[in-house]
Amino acid sequence: MMETWRKKGGSAWERTKRAPGLACRKMWQVGKDDPRRAIHAVKVGLALTLVSMLYLLEPLFEGIGQNAIWAVMTVVVVLEFTAGATLCKGLNRGLGTIMAGSLAFLIEFVAEETGQVGRAIFIGCAVFVIGAAATYLRFLPYVKKNYDYGVVIFLLTFNLITVSSFRVSNVMKIAHERLITIAIGCGICLFMSLLVFPIWSGQDLHNSTVNKLQGLAKSIEVCVDEYFSDEAVTEVREEESDEEDKSCDEDPIYKGYKAVLDSKSIDEALALYASWEPRHSRHCRYPWQQYVKVGAALRRFSYTVVALHGCLQTEIQTPKSCRALFKGPCIRLASEVSGVLMELATSIRNRRHCSPELLADHLHDALQDLNKAVRSQPRLFLGSNCSQASNMLAVAAAQARQEKEPGGGGGGASSLLSSAKTDTSTLREWKKTRSKKELSAAERKVLRPQLSKIAMLTCSLEFCEALPFAAFASLLVETVARLDSVMEEVEELGRVAGFKEYKRDDDDDVVTVKCETPRVDVCLNNLPSHGLD
Amino acid sequence: MMETWRKKGGSAWERTKRAPGLACRKMWQVGKDDPRRAIHAVKVGLALTLVSMLYLLEPLFEGIGQNAIWAVMTVVVVLEFTAGATLCKGLNRGLGTIMAGSLAFLIEFVAEETGQVGRAIFIGCAVFVIGAAATYLRFLPYVKKNYDYGVVIFLLTFNLITVSSFRVSNVMKIAHERLITIAIGCGICLFMSLLVFPIWSGQDLHNSTVNKLQGLAKSIEVCVDEYFSDEAVTEVREEESDEEDKSCDEDPIYKGYKAVLDSKSIDEALALYASWEPRHSRHCRYPWQQYVKVGAALRRFSYTVVALHGCLQTEIQTPKSCRALFKGPCIRLASEVSGVLMELATSIRNRRHCSPELLADHLHDALQDLNKAVRSQPRLFLGSNCSQASNMLAVAAAQARQEKEPGGGGGGASSLLSSAKTDTSTLREWKKTRSKKELSAAERKVLRPQLSKIAMLTCSLEFCEALPFAAFASLLVETVARLDSVMEEVEELGRVAGFKEYKRDDDDDVVTVKCETPRVDVCLNNLPSHGLD
Repeated sequence: MMETWRKKGGSAWERTKRAPGLACRKMWQVGKDDPRRAIHAVKVGLALTLVSMLYLLEPLFEGIGQNAIWAVMTVVVVLEFTAGATLCKGLNRGLGTIMAGSLAFLIEFVAEETGQVGRAIFIGCAVFVIGAAATYLRFLPYVKKNYDYGVVIFLLTFNLITVSSFRVSNVMKIAHERLITIAIGCGICLFMSLLVFPIWSGQDLHNSTVNKLQGLAKSIEVCVDEYFSDEAVTEVREEESDEEDKSCDEDPIYKGYKAVLDSKSIDEALALYASWEPRHSRHCRYPWQQYVKVGAALRRFSYTVVALHGCLQTEIQTPKSCRALFKGPCIRLASEVSGVLMELATSIRNRRHCSPELLADHLHDALQDLNKAVRSQPRLFLGSNCSQASNMLAVAAAQARQEKEPGGGGGGASSLLSSAKTDTSTLREWKKTRSKKELSAAERKVLRPQLSKIAMLTCSLEFCEALPFAAFASLLVETVARLDSVMEEVEELGRVAGFKEYKRDDDDDVVTVKCETPRVDVCLNNLPSHGLD
Repeated sequence: MMETWRKKGGSAWERTKRAPGLACRKMWQVGKDDPRRAIHAVKVGLALTLVSMLYLLEPLFEGIGQNAIWAVMTVVVVLEFTAGATLCKGLNRGLGTIMAGSLAFLIEFVAEETGQVGRAIFIGCAVFVIGAAATYLRFLPYVKKNYDYGVVIFLLTFNLITVSSFRVSNVMKIAHERLITIAIGCGICLFMSLLVFPIWSGQDLHNSTVNKLQGLAKSIEVCVDEYFSDEAVTEVREEESDEEDKSCDEDPIYKGYKAVLDSKSIDEALALYASWEPRHSRHCRYPWQQYVKVGAALRRFSYTVVALHGCLQTEIQTPKSCRALFKGPCIRLASEVSGVLMELATSIRNRRHCSPELLADHLHDALQDLNKAVRSQPRLFLGSNCSQASNMLAVAAAQARQEKEPGGGGGGASSLLSSAKTDTSTLREWKKTRSKKELSAAERKVLRPQLSKIAMLTCSLEFCEALPFAAFASLLVETVARLDSVMEEVEELGRVAGFKEYKRDDDDDVVTVKCETPRVDVCLNNLPSHGLD
């Protein structure tokens, strides 16, 4: 007992000692992943120092006075990571302040007539009604998406002006000064975000779209390779049950499509901010919404990739010998699909149309190949009725069974029956025990996956064993169908955004250089926006 | 020309006339979807009125004075939709303010020694360093998740105190008063959110988990029904190309799993807030993180459902006659799976363990059924090599071809070949035209999907036609495998949360009553949090 305590205490002490080093390494990692974060931090510091000058320098303070504090607040709140977000917030803040000011003066004007008590009641009612109405308005999807921050600022400013107007006579002057200082704060923010190392949401959106395409390409390729490799699959499967989360994070397949799955809100936010940014292209309106559409098509595509990945992880597996027959065509099709995705990525990165030859030609051939391969191996899809000598399935199943149960013999059909019986009796037993409620929680937890594994295993042996492979192949073909909609959206993007035409020679060297850019997880940059006033 | 202008003007006028009505209806809908939104709005109005009393009532104003404005600000910012979010923000605000105050005093203490100019420089440097460091800290995932708002408030308060201390002598008094008024504001917020019609994040998380389970159950059932129904599939497919987005939103299958797909961030936020809420259960720590895990398992499950849904929408379809052979077992399996999901939903809703009989028994039988059905129809999985008289596939394919091309005749193999040729030549032609770059954008857009449809159609006719159905069946079996992990997580939830044991009789009547509660989209309630100070 003492031993374990000492051990625990020791490890806690060890952890405490290591904590600063770990924190430092994490801090370093955050900056290394995306150096723009460090730049943004310095920019915020600089902007704050600049705005503090209003206080610190005598001549500036003379002009503005105590109200300079509003400028400081504005800088803390409005300066966001990207230029578009800063512009969006600045505009919302300005609009909200002006509208609240106007409404407050209107109410002030009406309330002036009445006496002190009547005025207090009137103001109280106005605060209640406007507060409830504005809050309710925030639930409207359209308002929430575009003007939520503006409504909050409106509510805040309205309350500040209305309430303080009750005690202070020169509200007009206060509001005026506040507006000026907020304008100064916004000006510093805009200067910092637009002119000093600007970070563009549009660029982020562009890059993340390219990265997502590349990630999916990689996912598909690795996924199919792993499906047909001899060792990898079983290994992965065994590891998984122990440390699913850990292996999940390091799995290259999962890594590839992870960013795509949850990209909806980030894409939409980036597109919203990007639409505020001054166009850094020749075109009047850069089609950021089309990027969102490409993202949606990619997400639909990625669900198929997830299902494909599921074929690797499932307990029901087609015997390796069967799979090997289709290795060539499948791998070829997968590499074609991922080739198309890479070409799409390159074309978006270089803002050019994609090469027409690369796209449909080889893909079609690869589909035909797989088709031929499937047609030439009809025996695989045979059940027990067709009594051919070379019933590969039965052979493979028997082999698999022998590997698993060294003592088990007998013919195919009878052993299948017996295994089905075993399974059913296991189930009955389990249920009997369960109904007695004498199982401890721990036992219960162990039993459940085991039971399911038994059920699945039996099922996999009995089930027509070509089925899982058929699913895999069909999903692979399905990816081609979905790829089509991705291609459509990307072509539409190229059309709307006026990408340049494809030229063979301007391609190769550019790709190799640009491919090296680190893959930044955009969503981690998306700091939650707090609109402190 | 004039006509079109007049028409346009007319329709614009029509739209303007209808706009207020539309807005009103939307406003009403927002409140109808979740009446708690209206309650929250009224609560905010009430809290604002209460806090305004500090200004409006003579005796209160005497005590606090102008600083009452901070209380108003606090209420606007801290009062969130759910109790947990309010607590989380309030605590962050308090912590941030106190830490910033301490640091500001430390710096004030150090700076006091130096002269006026030295002090200004020192303060300027401190503002820069602290500003940059705090902003950089916000990028750390751990800080961002838990304390982002606190860091922002820290930065703001620190700047306010440090900068104003340069001009004002009694900073101590200001800080003290500010702290008190913020405390008053927080108090009002806590009173409102915890005692007046409290809205709990934990309850939301609980309900949304139940709803997600029910949605998935519905999705699977409808999906399989539609796959085997005679008319629905083709109809849906034809509509789709025209108005994909619209039909997508109304599609009951899509509706069922939509909420699950993008639920990650919402689940995590709700669990975070819920962990702040005072436990309204007997247990000391309610396992909200386990709900997140259930959500993750459900998301993994839903990807398979998406793939299943994809089988309905794909251009490659198994002939109806083939599908009909497996209708019974597939529909039974699907209804079992959705039955299990519904049972899990009910068990979570009633906070009890799920009934053991319902779970594994029928599911297993249904799997066996499907297995038997597949084994008894090996002809389906036959290619052209096995020359049986009743080659259903060839017959079905020929039928399908005749329906589509009334003029097309000839034997199976030769027509397949010719159609393949047609396709290849179409492709060549398209590419030729494309390379001439004479295609207008509109033509390009029309051509592309047509081409792909041709390719897919050919492919579907040549491809072993049982493959798509095999994929469907295999995915259905895969859902069972994934369902298993969902069951595990839900059982773990029941174990950790101490759900009560299953009793047959306390079930039926409760379910029917509670099933009627409207399905609220939780994510729409999740107002973005702006932390105006």
